[in-house]
Amino acid sequence: DAPLVLIAGPCQLEGLDHALAIAEPLQAACSAEGLGFIFKASFDKANRTSAGAVRGPGLEEGLAMLAGVKARLGVPVLTDIHLPEQAAPVAEVVDVLQVPAFLSRQTDLLQAAGRTGRAVNIKKGQFLAPWDMAQAAQKVAATGNEAILLTERGTSFGYNALVADMRALPIMAETGYPVIMDATHAVQMPGGQGSASGGDRRMAPALARAAVSLGIAGVFLETHPDPDNAPSDGPNMIRLEDMPALIGDLAAFDRLAKARPFRLG
Amino acid sequence: DAPLVLIAGPCQLEGLDHALAIAEPLQAACSAEGLGFIFKASFDKANRTSAGAVRGPGLEEGLAMLAGVKARLGVPVLTDIHLPEQAAPVAEVVDVLQVPAFLSRQTDLLQAAGRTGRAVNIKKGQFLAPWDMAQAAQKVAATGNEAILLTERGTSFGYNALVADMRALPIMAETGYPVIMDATHAVQMPGGQGSASGGDRRMAPALARAAVSLGIAGVFLETHPDPDNAPSDGPNMIRLEDMPALIGDLAAFDRLAKARPFRLG
Amino acid sequence: DAPLVLIAGPCQLEGLDHALAIAEPLQAACSAEGLGFIFKASFDKANRTSAGAVRGPGLEEGLAMLAGVKARLGVPVLTDIHLPEQAAPVAEVVDVLQVPAFLSRQTDLLQAAGRTGRAVNIKKGQFLAPWDMAQAAQKVAATGNEAILLTERGTSFGYNALVADMRALPIMAETGYPVIMDATHAVQMPGGQGSASGGDRRMAPALARAAVSLGIAGVFLETHPDPDNAPSDGPNMIRLEDMPALIGDLAAFDRLAKARPFRLG
Amino acid sequence: DAPLVLIAGPCQLEGLDHALAIAEPLQAACSAEGLGFIFKASFDKANRTSAGAVRGPGLEEGLAMLAGVKARLGVPVLTDIHLPEQAAPVAEVVDVLQVPAFLSRQTDLLQAAGRTGRAVNIKKGQFLAPWDMAQAAQKVAATGNEAILLTERGTSFGYNALVADMRALPIMAETGYPVIMDATHAVQMPGGQGSASGGDRRMAPALARAAVSLGIAGVFLETHPDPDNAPSDGPNMIRLEDMPALIGDLAAFDRLAKARPFRLG
Repeated sequence: DAPLVLIAGPCQLEGLDHALAIAEPLQAACSAEGLGFIFKASFDKANRTSAGAVRGPGLEEGLAMLAGVKARLGVPVLTDIHLPEQAAPVAEVVDVLQVPAFLSRQTDLLQAAGRTGRAVNIKKGQFLAPWDMAQAAQKVAATGNEAILLTERGTSFGYNALVADMRALPIMAETGYPVIMDATHAVQMPGGQGSASGGDRRMAPALARAAVSLGIAGVFLETHPDPDNAPSDGPNMIRLEDMPALIGDLAAFDRLAKARPFRLG
Repeated sequence: DAPLVLIAGPCQLEGLDHALAIAEPLQAACSAEGLGFIFKASFDKANRTSAGAVRGPGLEEGLAMLAGVKARLGVPVLTDIHLPEQAAPVAEVVDVLQVPAFLSRQTDLLQAAGRTGRAVNIKKGQFLAPWDMAQAAQKVAATGNEAILLTERGTSFGYNALVADMRALPIMAETGYPVIMDATHAVQMPGGQGSASGGDRRMAPALARAAVSLGIAGVFLETHPDPDNAPSDGPNMIRLEDMPALIGDLAAFDRLAKARPFRLG
Repeated sequence: DAPLVLIAGPCQLEGLDHALAIAEPLQAACSAEGLGFIFKASFDKANRTSAGAVRGPGLEEGLAMLAGVKARLGVPVLTDIHLPEQAAPVAEVVDVLQVPAFLSRQTDLLQAAGRTGRAVNIKKGQFLAPWDMAQAAQKVAATGNEAILLTERGTSFGYNALVADMRALPIMAETGYPVIMDATHAVQMPGGQGSASGGDRRMAPALARAAVSLGIAGVFLETHPDPDNAPSDGPNMIRLEDMPALIGDLAAFDRLAKARPFRLG
Repeated sequence: DAPLVLIAGPCQLEGLDHALAIAEPLQAACSAEGLGFIFKASFDKANRTSAGAVRGPGLEEGLAMLAGVKARLGVPVLTDIHLPEQAAPVAEVVDVLQVPAFLSRQTDLLQAAGRTGRAVNIKKGQFLAPWDMAQAAQKVAATGNEAILLTERGTSFGYNALVADMRALPIMAETGYPVIMDATHAVQMPGGQGSASGGDRRMAPALARAAVSLGIAGVFLETHPDPDNAPSDGPNMIRLEDMPALIGDLAAFDRLAKARPFRLG
């Protein structure tokens, strides 16, 4: 079992310098702990709660920024796509294409991502059971691409709330694909602030640590130097200055979990 | 308050004759009761549980069938779109563009639908609260199109299950837009049969009747002459032969509900 | 199918005059519409959110008040019990013993209530499925008492929230026992105000009307002349002055529903 | 932070020899790992799904067995009570009185338990939010007894299902009372087998490990030498032969978690 991979970055791209200022300390902290690192940021927030919300730099500028991060730091990058036609151009730059949770049942999007040959990270829809993800993965695998990641990011739990079910991690792992815990989206309160989503970032480290103790492949965390002034997902992003300690923590639990592998009986 | 409108038809298009054989008796039954009628059918099931499932005839053939129904029977038609570029061609034929529940937060899709000037029916995502739909509607309204319908179709309730919250109907009605109850999707058990969704069609008339008693604008029901052999949504579609009695029932409750209008205090 | 029965009264007993001032107009309104009426009030709120909350007059004084209502108005009365030993003394006065939702699985309490020979109204636990209630009813029926009522009062739906599933009504009716909709508890937000439960009384008439349209046996509503100053359940109780119009409304829907009986197919 | 305490034993008492045969290897395994151990078993299952189900030996015989375990092995014992009058006699023998989840809002029961001066373990109701437990604890604390434990055992999640929210653990810990994870009840499927509750024991070790990684005070696990033939809770109890390995596992995670204490930011 390989060491934990951290997938982390800001919710949306705000510029190359901004991206580098986030990616560099994350890369350093992961490297110090022997963890893998993939930089994550979105070029377009295509499903904001409100029509008036900031959506990001768009495909072309966004890819240029991601290419810049990759070139300067030599780290793999991940971004999410929303339409089938975005798959090919995005795959020219990024290493992992991500299918958003709301879109995790859209066959054409999953297959467009699969056909690029790049790794595909499918977020589990808030409306799906963990065992339903085998079918989503199969849609990608049907394109001949088996580089699939499955990510838990919380399940609908009443209105404007999510719950992260730790059972989802070993259940999804039974597919044989690497499983990721998205600990910052799982603490979202979707639409919980009327025209924006709320969240409780204090809870994200708890979910990350609990998930890592089960020996998962990776953790997904959104982080920002100034979450309260970030254009999106501020309430649930972790302060960048808190990340090195959290990474150290997760690395310690990952070493123990990998030494005592957890399998469903 | 206008009489109830029935939006009904098979889950997916299976041919013009098949569509007509369903639309004709529905039109006759609605007309006999003084109800409106909109024929509904999908040309592409873009988010089936399984990659191998039948998806339908596709855009071009599907629109030809819908145009045929419209020409022969003079009834308005509704279909759902999955990508922004489908909005314009679909709007050339259909009267109501429907945005699927999983896609009810996709800004570009909502706005592409809105820009056609056709009526837009937004299904409430299984992951959304009823009050969240004001934001979805606003995305369409921002295009200058106020011909918006909001449809309840059930909310995630644990794994592989939905619940229909009757409170959602008066809450969504406070937006001022007409509210529809989709009674057959609300009894789905999503993914509940492993590689397909289950459902319990016996419950759909209960949800329809309860919703109509609140004075809503319309009811959405999928129906099929032989649901158990339909290509999709068989477990929750109502047998076509049972529709006239159900329509008579709903019409009686609609007349009483419109005579005693329900408003939140 | 007999006309609808209204089970209504204040959450807790506050005195005989107070009880009469509530019961009289309810009795008059039900009588004018041909509906049955059972006066409901609690002598002890044994499971308040907070230890410091007002609990009511207690068993002895409470029974005296209920006996007074019965004697003066000639209406049947209902109250809830919390311990097996309360069943016998309460049964000397009240016509219907109610088992609270939290206690709906407590075998000894159900059987003590059953052994009195009085009617037993079992509220469905917020943690139970409608089909689970057949087992609760059987615990009472095992005492030889078949005078059982089953009441829906909402199901847990995330934290501090409930949802009323209309499907529960015909499902519970399949047991053959009369089914009641408790429309004011179903709009509670349990614990939602920190040291007290919240609620939204505006929604209770919607749930009552939707439920009555399915042809149920009765509706349960808590009401108070001044809900905002009531000792408990203020946020969800209906203003007494609003009850006659609501009763007229429900009677109209009941007549239609009984003329068009609803059965699961 | 003290080492983890294991609270474990069979769901119901089946005899002194049976109890000893379970308690001895658990005591040995905990001792070898430096963990605390409290033997748990019930003398009466007062809320079985079905009236016909086996309930246990009853108060008098049950206490004799628990006293026997205590005398022979010198371990503290825990059992649950269902009525206020059981508190005093039970407190003469057992070290920890447990208030069942369904009864976690019953003020009289909580206070009767509190007044014994024994430690009181309150299980969080399946219908309660973690922050609601501060009020339940206060009901006990109002008797002057601060020896309170709070136990997560899963929250209602649709029908016949529970979900264990790891956020509940640090939230409840903010009360200052020790927090326990009941990992075998959290994997129950209440009523999920019609006249009995189902469950998935394979998931219990995952929830236990995840919870222990957050540095909680204790883990609660039901275990049996032959779960499939146990009188209750068979589907979710862990095989006794699997307990020593699980205890070793949890001890390792506990040591790491206590070395890296987790606090909400």
